[in-house]
Amino acid sequence: MNPLHHIPTAADIRATHEAIRPMIHRTPALTCRSIDEMAGARLFFKCENFQKVGAFKMRGAGSAALRLSEKEKERGLATHSSGNHAQAVALSAKLLGIPAYIVMPDTSPAIKKAATEGYGAEVILCENTLAARESTLEKVVERTGATFIHPYNDYNVIAGQATAAKELIEDAGELDCIIAPIGGGGLMSGTALSTRYFSPGALAYGSEPKAVDDAYRSFKSGTMQANATIDTIADGLRTNLGEKTFDIIQRELEDIFTVSEEAIIAAMRLVWERMKIVIEPSCAVPLAAVLANRPVFEGRKVGVILTGGNVDLGKLPF
Amino acid sequence: MNPLHHIPTAADIRATHEAIRPMIHRTPALTCRSIDEMAGARLFFKCENFQKVGAFKMRGAGSAALRLSEKEKERGLATHSSGNHAQAVALSAKLLGIPAYIVMPDTSPAIKKAATEGYGAEVILCENTLAARESTLEKVVERTGATFIHPYNDYNVIAGQATAAKELIEDAGELDCIIAPIGGGGLMSGTALSTRYFSPGALAYGSEPKAVDDAYRSFKSGTMQANATIDTIADGLRTNLGEKTFDIIQRELEDIFTVSEEAIIAAMRLVWERMKIVIEPSCAVPLAAVLANRPVFEGRKVGVILTGGNVDLGKLPF
Repeated sequence: MNPLHHIPTAADIRATHEAIRPMIHRTPALTCRSIDEMAGARLFFKCENFQKVGAFKMRGAGSAALRLSEKEKERGLATHSSGNHAQAVALSAKLLGIPAYIVMPDTSPAIKKAATEGYGAEVILCENTLAARESTLEKVVERTGATFIHPYNDYNVIAGQATAAKELIEDAGELDCIIAPIGGGGLMSGTALSTRYFSPGALAYGSEPKAVDDAYRSFKSGTMQANATIDTIADGLRTNLGEKTFDIIQRELEDIFTVSEEAIIAAMRLVWERMKIVIEPSCAVPLAAVLANRPVFEGRKVGVILTGGNVDLGKLPF
Repeated sequence: MNPLHHIPTAADIRATHEAIRPMIHRTPALTCRSIDEMAGARLFFKCENFQKVGAFKMRGAGSAALRLSEKEKERGLATHSSGNHAQAVALSAKLLGIPAYIVMPDTSPAIKKAATEGYGAEVILCENTLAARESTLEKVVERTGATFIHPYNDYNVIAGQATAAKELIEDAGELDCIIAPIGGGGLMSGTALSTRYFSPGALAYGSEPKAVDDAYRSFKSGTMQANATIDTIADGLRTNLGEKTFDIIQRELEDIFTVSEEAIIAAMRLVWERMKIVIEPSCAVPLAAVLANRPVFEGRKVGVILTGGNVDLGKLPF
């Protein structure tokens, strides 16, 4: 596969899916009668909490890594992240037998550092500011010649994330709508593209915590907005959109819903209690939006992307 | 189907499985590479936490209910339980369109009472002693003519619980061994029978918390022993064996392992963190036993029954 310099087409997403298949799990689409009753809709949950490294990020990192030239691959992958993307890049490198360099803030929990090193990556610690992360990453790339894998603002990554919704549509059949959470927008962009290509009658919706509603405000105003705070339990969604993801979101989405912290925690608890699966708070945002906007979803067949299951069991909100 | 007055045969278990199919979910058998690495074995987890009412109990209650005569069915089902069996009897009655009467200690959480009533059952509260439960149940049966569904010491119930291991063997293929937890012994008896009938080369093992090791001591001594305390987090396993389940366990089991409370909590956390599924503490007992007895299980293909996922998220041990 060649690197993508355009918005992924249906053929690009199909090719990506074929290519990353050995690197990912095909996760199940689960249903839950009692939650359906509460929502008044038929919900199909795409369980990326069961994905390798515990999150959909494996799809995008795998897609980007596989598109590097042999020479680039040899020099390895680099990124800055303390979360799921770090582990996805580290595992992608491990599976390809190439080095990975991960810049992490020195405030990251020891367990995350250990997990990333467990995949064979070299972890480089830096101060916990965006400036320090970026300058440290730059130095690492200079030193090693490794390729920076952006967590979301990259068409190769977007094509990978799009495969989650593609599988969901294959397993659940044509849908009336699909809803995903929005952080940097990589998953949302990919989801919206797969919705258009593979379930063309369906509408794509986004969802965000009220506290970090940059995508909502960007979508409504037509110009990119930034988050003023990061004050949400949905720690995967604190990021601002990138220009590539904003562009796709603006073209493809029907609407974006924002939800309160209370609604996120209640939806998270509901999934744990009724579906017996572990999801991280960011995952609960789309379900919270569905439950809070019943007139929009009532009677419909709705795809819901559950993004990951990496949660600190020692710090649960209930 | 006629009521069983003998240890269930392979044909009995097959017939039971056919009959209860519309009342149960076919739950998945999941695997987890990182836990396999820790155990040095290939583990196949039968996920009864995804079963209706959140536990395998639905299988046994369904089996017993379906074997009643039309006249008995009309008069309804009765039991005493504050746990998964109560909800399983209540839902079985609902699915058959007949009444259910559930005796519960007045100390039961309001949420359990509400859940049982949610299935349309009549809940009768009594003092929290075994004597009060039994005498209250007797009065209910006298008043209503309903049939008492015993939670485990009943061949009809055992035939139902046996279908979980049957499905596991169908999905995972022949196994080297199967391990289940032991409370009253209904699940363990059924598991051991299905192991012999459907994977005849495999050994059946039991597992128990050290704190409530009545089955271990009964198995080793050859005479039924009782628990002196109920001091374990594995609240589903506090019950003593019945004479029918003891009889089967004594004939069919290769061995029983006991595990510490710390090992149970660690195994529970491991499943939540690595497999991203919610299991109750009782479920973690077999995995704790596998991890603590590596020489027994190393290199083998092991079936592990995960019994249920009903846990109070407000009272987690981590």
